[in-house]
Parts: sequence; structure tokens; C-alpha cells
Amino acid sequence: MILDKVNNPKDLNKLNIGELETLAQEMRELIINKVNTIGGHCGPNLGIVEATIAMHYVFNSPVDKIVFDVSHQCYPHKIITGRKEGFLNPDMYLKYTGYTAPEESEHDMFKVGHTSTSVSLALGLAKARDLKHENYNVIALIGDGSLSGGEAFEGLDNAAALDGNFIIVVNDNDMSIAENHGGIYSNLKKLRETNGKYECNYFKTFGFDYYYLEEGNNIEKLINAFEKVRDSKKPVVLHIHTIKGCGLDVAEQNKEAFHWIVPGTLDKKEENQQNPINEENYTSITVDYILNKTKTDNSVIAIAAGTPGVFGFNSEFRNILGKQYTDVGIAEEHAVAYSSGLAKAGAKPILSLMSSFVQRTYDQLSQDLCLNNSPVTMLIYWGGISDADATHLCVFDIPLMSNIPNLVYLAPTTKEEYISMLDWSVEQTQYPVAIRVPSCELVSSGIKDMTDYSVLNKYKVEEHGETVAIIGLGSFFNLACQVKDELKKQSGINATVINPKFITGVDKELLNNLKQNHEIVITLEDGVLDGGFGEKISRFYGDSKMKVLNYGAKKEFTDRANLEELYTRYRLRKELIVQDILKNVKIYT
Amino acid sequence: MILDKVNNPKDLNKLNIGELETLAQEMRELIINKVNTIGGHCGPNLGIVEATIAMHYVFNSPVDKIVFDVSHQCYPHKIITGRKEGFLNPDMYLKYTGYTAPEESEHDMFKVGHTSTSVSLALGLAKARDLKHENYNVIALIGDGSLSGGEAFEGLDNAAALDGNFIIVVNDNDMSIAENHGGIYSNLKKLRETNGKYECNYFKTFGFDYYYLEEGNNIEKLINAFEKVRDSKKPVVLHIHTIKGCGLDVAEQNKEAFHWIVPGTLDKKEENQQNPINEENYTSITVDYILNKTKTDNSVIAIAAGTPGVFGFNSEFRNILGKQYTDVGIAEEHAVAYSSGLAKAGAKPILSLMSSFVQRTYDQLSQDLCLNNSPVTMLIYWGGISDADATHLCVFDIPLMSNIPNLVYLAPTTKEEYISMLDWSVEQTQYPVAIRVPSCELVSSGIKDMTDYSVLNKYKVEEHGETVAIIGLGSFFNLACQVKDELKKQSGINATVINPKFITGVDKELLNNLKQNHEIVITLEDGVLDGGFGEKISRFYGDSKMKVLNYGAKKEFTDRANLEELYTRYRLRKELIVQDILKNVKIYT
Repeated sequence: MILDKVNNPKDLNKLNIGELETLAQEMRELIINKVNTIGGHCGPNLGIVEATIAMHYVFNSPVDKIVFDVSHQCYPHKIITGRKEGFLNPDMYLKYTGYTAPEESEHDMFKVGHTSTSVSLALGLAKARDLKHENYNVIALIGDGSLSGGEAFEGLDNAAALDGNFIIVVNDNDMSIAENHGGIYSNLKKLRETNGKYECNYFKTFGFDYYYLEEGNNIEKLINAFEKVRDSKKPVVLHIHTIKGCGLDVAEQNKEAFHWIVPGTLDKKEENQQNPINEENYTSITVDYILNKTKTDNSVIAIAAGTPGVFGFNSEFRNILGKQYTDVGIAEEHAVAYSSGLAKAGAKPILSLMSSFVQRTYDQLSQDLCLNNSPVTMLIYWGGISDADATHLCVFDIPLMSNIPNLVYLAPTTKEEYISMLDWSVEQTQYPVAIRVPSCELVSSGIKDMTDYSVLNKYKVEEHGETVAIIGLGSFFNLACQVKDELKKQSGINATVINPKFITGVDKELLNNLKQNHEIVITLEDGVLDGGFGEKISRFYGDSKMKVLNYGAKKEFTDRANLEELYTRYRLRKELIVQDILKNVKIYT
Repeated sequence: MILDKVNNPKDLNKLNIGELETLAQEMRELIINKVNTIGGHCGPNLGIVEATIAMHYVFNSPVDKIVFDVSHQCYPHKIITGRKEGFLNPDMYLKYTGYTAPEESEHDMFKVGHTSTSVSLALGLAKARDLKHENYNVIALIGDGSLSGGEAFEGLDNAAALDGNFIIVVNDNDMSIAENHGGIYSNLKKLRETNGKYECNYFKTFGFDYYYLEEGNNIEKLINAFEKVRDSKKPVVLHIHTIKGCGLDVAEQNKEAFHWIVPGTLDKKEENQQNPINEENYTSITVDYILNKTKTDNSVIAIAAGTPGVFGFNSEFRNILGKQYTDVGIAEEHAVAYSSGLAKAGAKPILSLMSSFVQRTYDQLSQDLCLNNSPVTMLIYWGGISDADATHLCVFDIPLMSNIPNLVYLAPTTKEEYISMLDWSVEQTQYPVAIRVPSCELVSSGIKDMTDYSVLNKYKVEEHGETVAIIGLGSFFNLACQVKDELKKQSGINATVINPKFITGVDKELLNNLKQNHEIVITLEDGVLDGGFGEKISRFYGDSKMKVLNYGAKKEFTDRANLEELYTRYRLRKELIVQDILKNVKIYT
């Protein structure tokens, strides 16, 4: 194997073009095997193998600094920069993250997992270099998909004003996660079609020098192109046309499906890939709900921001919805403001966002949406404590969203509640509403939920008891029930169990009534405690004798943590919680 | 007066061009008188008088919908749309807000005060119109300054894909609040210089139809231009070149100073305008600090995002700093990521932001900055309860920022603490640090603060007492002292007074020690309670007998509220707090 000779980027310079091409094939095989075994980003990494080799061949990392946008296309970079064992040895597959990580290697500048950040981060490096009178290349590698995010535009706009070396490599594979949308992609297309000659050029409007390379998977040509921009004394854009999924037929043909694949994808028969298991879950019932709703009401519109797959919005769904669907691209700020506009003019927007990405649009939630009280329905997915990469945590949405005035943020605990909340939210015209789609398995009571959600902040006592009250929010309602049972078993105490449903308000009447025959209130939330739901209950009882224990995540960035260990560390276990309760209940203390 | 005949936009169509021009002069006079009397946005409104008249002459508002970006240029619009009394009658000057406000008029679509939102909001209106098979024009009016914000780019990118009427008017006065920075402005310049003919055209790269009008203050030409784009069946950009401050010589010559003026500006002698009162305050000592620091260390760099005046970064300051200063334009997301990059490569960035605008960059704070633990110093201005417009509230920064891991958010109470925190923050390399620059008058102890801020989350007991402990955060520390005195007077209780200094952490040891001889803890914070500082103290004491009362703002959008009334409503008065304390202290209950 050629790869045997490559332990760091400098080793590339000992190889000839033929050997580099062989190396690319070896690396491609490793990536395919790894993502097919443990899952991971497939298409983006296969497309960038040659460019990564050429980049490291030409530039002198880590003296020269390469910043990867989103960084889910950094697998080839990791292989070259001393981490090939994480791809060669299946036992080591999990050793390295799927994103750049400075703690792993001096060749990784930043921990990155959200899009559109590379130009800004790299520009900071370049400016610091100039202030300190140092001398090296700074390269931002940005994919076409990332260009739709406003942060990338802001970075480009400011970068053009730099008076020094700065190299932006645009990795254009004509595809973000799903197909690309929006005006700038028509420009990239024209640039590809004219071999970069089209005069009305997005990058040139900023004032950048501009180079185009059509054969973005040809190592020799890539090396020439990188050599042309190396040591540039001013900001320059190198636009390369690569093939997403390059070298794996099925990935080249199904670019969206092979953006990120689950383990065993390549081993399955083709029909299985197209037909996921037909089991009802919160995603599937949402898809069905939207399909039904849009069919009967042409003012209903579904909106996504570049990750339709997460919500089950496959191409069939998108085709059926037609004009009643907008994928704005990776542009969450616009998605929220656009939804607000839709609602103001009488449409009924349903905007789906992942918890981790709702972070990208705080001001729009506050100003464009909530200050204007626009009746938008937002569905927040994946909220909760998880074993995710540090860049994709979903524990911050409650503090982020629920402290904004006017927003009604709901946490259903069953399918029936969820549907009922959706029905209310889509048709009402008074509030911006968000629903935290449960991240747990689907629970169905079988009984239609008749709650009138226009009566805000009414918690529901699911089981009446005494001494101890347990408030289980959303996907942690089940844990509340478990705690109740365990407490009964251990102490005979018959606890009250409460399903609050509303994240954004306190049910003062109910909480006051609890004072009559309860000593302690427990809150359970599937998110970070700081700024979250439970603290508001603690504040409420501040002037009373009621004790309050808040359970949830600690304020920290976890990184691919073991979920069971996390639950134990956060004491989110029925036994541990009962232990805490019994320490605080009078009869036992 | 021609204006006597104009009570709503339809009245414009009864006037000839000469009368419309006279009307423009009348409106200009009114605006000048008003802003010189009560303060307000001057230059932006003077520049847009003619375009507003022409727009209302050609379009049929409110059937046709006009969305104003930032909306600080809506004064002429307000005069035309039935609110002229707010400009004619000095007693009515305060009746209408300085921004668009749907509660005032059906001609105002949204409550808007942050930049770069108009295209997205308007696109939502246009899409809803199409879904409902309605038929009207939708116009987004966006200034050149607003184009630097990422949300505007995201909106443009998506708008180009709309298959229907959509009109974007670019009001280009070659100036945002301060001079414009960044690549896109070189493009606007080339377009102005070529009468819109320059082929490499930012707007055309998205695929928009494009028209240019050089004489953006000529009513007749404006009417012709608007008539050309009216009823367009596809998205179109009309780029008009206007003069900021048009018609007021001093404003045309001092565009930045006259963006927003304080009462009486036009009555002052010229030298006074350039030399503000020479009194020491938190802004002036920050300016001095940065000037000194940059002089001795060329790796120190100050960064602003389009509002340098707020921070006292006048042209002299900017000239002295030279390359050690970056104004990124209105692009807070980029500003944060850029600062993170600067810090990673060894520079010492000091980023200044207004509390209200830090909202525009949550994800970058979380991902680009805090996850990467970059040692950036952020200065957050104007944080606190205020009589501001609903669009410019500064009470949300504590919940927004302080629940993000890794960030150290500090709240000084004196000049000496502030300087000491700055010294520590700029030189340390372990944490992202933010300092909430006090919004109150400068307090000086005269004694150098020797605190080692690398020992995180150590609160300071300023006065030792018993029974009651009062924690006064930042600019509310003074209120804590007042409460202590009042309590002593009324009850003889000698309360403990604590200066927490750290917003982002709880001093467990100190809080535990309080349990020995205290019954109740009071927290005072100059911001919204929900998700804020005090709730964390409540949570901490949840399993103890300690009572906790949290004081701060309610979660609500206030709008030009009377500050004294707000303080009373929030019970932020020494008498009211003492009343609450005495209700809860055992000896009195």
C-alpha cells in the first residue's frame, strides 16, 4: 500500500503523480469501508479525496493553516495527517471524531460542525498573522452548500478587504446535503458551464481574484491550481468542480441518500435503501400530518433549511407538496423571517429545524418572529441529551428559545398530544408556537387529546398523590413515571406526576396548590438545566418552604459521550432520584 | 402647505410633480425639526424622502406591501400614511415610534429595528400571496448598510428562486451607519460609477432583473423607475442612488455624525459637535484602554460590527488604530467567528457589541467561539432595563450568553474592577470572556482591584451581615447597597451585601456558608429574570431551607416604557424589596 508510506503531509511530496492517484484510491476504499461499518459522511468525503491530497502536497500544514467548513469532509485530511489508523483498523474506527478536532492533531485548526463558518474563522487567522508580521498561507475550504448560510457571505464580504494572503477554495459538487436551492447556485452553474469564464461572477463581485478548475478530482491539475494561488499576496478564490460521492457509483447516482449513510447501507439490496422500515414514529406521523394538511389547505406550507432528510422530507414528499414546500438552503435566519412573513400574509407555515441548528437564528426568533407575534408553527427535532459530537449537541434549545417573550413552546409526551398541539398551532393566529418533537420512541395513549391549548400554561396532573410531585417534561415524562413507581416501591410514598406540556410558562395555580400536601417538587428535563425549565419552578417556590430539585444536563459541551454514563452523571436515573428525594423528605430526614 | 392635502398615500396622486417636490421640502423641514427637538435618525430619513413619496405614488399601499429594512428610515412613510401629526405637532412627537409599527398603521407590515431582515420578511408575504392566489406587489426596501448582514444575503439567495412578483429596492447612499466596509461595497461603487452597467453585478449573480437609477432624490425619475418594476412577474432589483442627509448641508457633510442625532444638535456650535463633553464614563475609559493597549502590543485588535459610534470609536480612534481595528460592517456572526480565528492564531481581539445586537450571533458564540474556547474579549454595552424601543431592548443578553458552556461572563461594578477584568481577559489564553460594561454612571472606588479573575466564580462579600444576603449583579450592585441601608433603617437587620462579579457561575462555597446565619437571599439583576442569573441561585438552594427572591425584568417586550414605572412594576425599588424581605424573614412573620 502506498498509504504505508504516508504518516504525515510531508510524505506526500516523496510520491509521484501515479502514486498519489493510487493513494487516492486506497483512501477512498478505506472511507467507504469505514462509513459502511459505523456510518458517517460518505459523499462529501469521496468527492474531496484528490483535492485534499493536492492541498497537502502544495501547502505546508500546520505552518500553513487549512480551515474546513462544516468539516464533515475532513476524513481524507485525517488519513493524511497522522490518523490513518482510525480508518485502517476497524477497532479504531471510533477513535477520531467525524469533524476537525484540534485536540486530535495540530493540523486541525477548529472544532467545526455547523456550516458557513470557515471564511470568517480563517480570516481571523490571516489577520492575526499579519498583525504579528508572520508569513504563511491561510486556506478556507468551503463547500457549495455552505455558501447559502449568511455567515459565509459576511465572511466573504469582509475577506475581500484583507490586504494579504488569503485563499478560499470553493468545493463545488453541485449539491449541498440535498439539491441546492436559491440564486447563487444558478451562478455557480453558469461558472461551471463556462469553465469559470462567465463575467457576472459572484466571487468577483466582492473583488476577489478568481480561478476555476473543472477537473476537481484530477490530482495533477489540482496541484497546478493550488500552486497558482499559493503565497498569493491578496485574497483569492479557487473554485473547483468536484463530484460528490466520486468513485462509488451508487453514491454518485444517489447524492442526497449518500451524503451521510447508516452502517450496512452498501450491503443492503437497493429497494431497501429507498424504503426505510415502515414503523410509525414521530417523524413519520409528522410527514403524514403535513401531507394531509397541505392537501386540504393550500395556505399550509412546509419549510426546511437544508436538512430535509432529518425530517423525512424525501423527494416524493417534496414533489407532492410542490409549491407548498420551500427548502431555503442552509439559511436558518432567513427560514424564520420568511416564515414570519408567510404567517403575516395569512399562510400557515410549518418550519422544521433540528435543535442544534435552531441556534443559528436567535435574533430572527426574537425580532422577526416573536416581537411580531407571527403565528408560525416550528417543529424542533432531536432535542435532548445524546451521544452526539460536540458540534451537534441538542440540549440548548430550551434556554435558547423559551426565554424569548411571546413564544409558546410545547412539549408533547404522546402521539395524541402531539397531533392535538399541531392542530391547534397551525390554525391559531395569536402566537408563534414551537413544538419539541419527542426524541424518544413513539408513545400512543390511544385516546384523542381534547386539550384546549389556547389556554396557555396549564399543566396536567396525570396522577394525583402527595408529599412528592414529579414534573416530567416532554420526552422525560416517562422517567417521571418510573421515579414515581420506584419511590412507591422503596418508601410507600404515592407521588404526584405532572405533565407540564408548556415549556414557556409556569402554572401558578397548580404549583400553589401543591403546597397544601407536598414537600418537594422534582423537575426533569431533557436538556441543559441552566436557563431551562426547572429553574423557573425553583424561582417560583423561592419564597416558600417547598423544596425543589432540578434534573437535566450540566452546562457543558459533551463529545460523543456514552449516553448511559451521562444519565448516571446527571443523576437521571430513577434510583438516584429516589435516593435524593428520600434525603429531602421530612419523614425520612 | 401641500402637506395639508395629504392624509394618506392616495392623496399623492392628486398632486403634480412640482407639488410633490414642494411636499418633499415640507416633509424634510418637519423631520429636521423633530429630530433636532427629540433626537432620532436624521440622515437616513432625509435621504429617502423623495423615494418614499414616489413609492407611495406608484404603489397602492396597504394592498401592495412595503417592508422597510431596519425601518429607521420610515419617517417620511409615517408622514404620508396618516401620522403627520407626530411630526407637525411637537406635543405629539413621541406618539409614534421611530420604526415601523403595525399597531400604528395598516401601512406598516412588521415591527422592525434590527437590520437585514426586509428581503426575508417580504419574501414570506409574496409567497403567501402566491399560495392564496392573491395579486399585489410586494416591495422590500433595503439600505446598502443592511446588505452586509448575512440574513439579507440568505433572503436574496432564496428570493431569486421565487416565481412571482417581488421588488427589492436597494437604497444606496454609499454609507451604512459609519462608512461601508467590505467587498460588496466596491461592487455597489462600480455600479454607481457605471450607471448600473458594470457587468459583474452582485444582484445579477443571483439571477435578478436589475435596474439602476442614479438620481435617487428626483421624484419624477423615481416615479418612472417604480412604474417600470410595478407588477413585475418575477423578482427584480431596483438600485437607487440617494444622498444620505439630503437637503441638510451639515448632515450631507457629516454623514456618520448625522445618522442619529441627539436633541439640539443643530443648535450647537460646530466645535461642540466634534468634541463631546469630556467627562469620564465607561465608554471613554474603554476607548482609552484600547488606545493604550494597542500602542504597546501590536497583536491587540479592536473589532466593531457597524456601530462604532456607540463605543466611542470615532474617526480619530479608528485612524490611530489603523490595522489594529476592523469594522466588519453589520455582520455580528462574522465578527464573532473572525475574533475566534484571531485569538486562535495568537492575536488579542477585543470585540464590542451592543446587548441588543449580540442576539444576532448565538450560534457563533456557541460553536465558533465557546466550543473552541478561543480567548476573545467581548464587551457588551447597554445591557439593562431601559426605555428603549421594543426592537432595541437590552435585557436578554444574560440568558442568551450565560447558558453557553465555557464562556466567562463578568459584571464589574466599578471602574477599577472593569479595568482589572479587562487586563486579565485580554492577556489570558484559557477562556472566551465577555464583560458587561455597566450601563450606569461610572463608579470609582479609587482602589486598584487586585482580584485574580482566573479563579473563576468567586463572589465578593462587600459587607458582612446576617439573616438577609443581597446579591447585586453589575449595575444593580448600587441597588443592593440601597436595600441594605433601607432594611437596616426599617428593621435593624444588618444584611450581607455580595458583589458576584461572575454571571456565568455559582460560588457554591460562599452560598453554602450563607446557610449558617442567613434565612433569605435576594438577587438583583439588570435584565430579564427568565434564564438569567438569579434563577441559578434559586436552583442552588432548592434542597435547603434558604428562601430566595429573584428581582429583574419580566419576560416581555416593553416598548418605550417609562423607566421609573418599569422599576416599580418589577419591584426594583428599595422600599418594595424591603417590604418583600420583611414578609419572609422569620422574626417578622
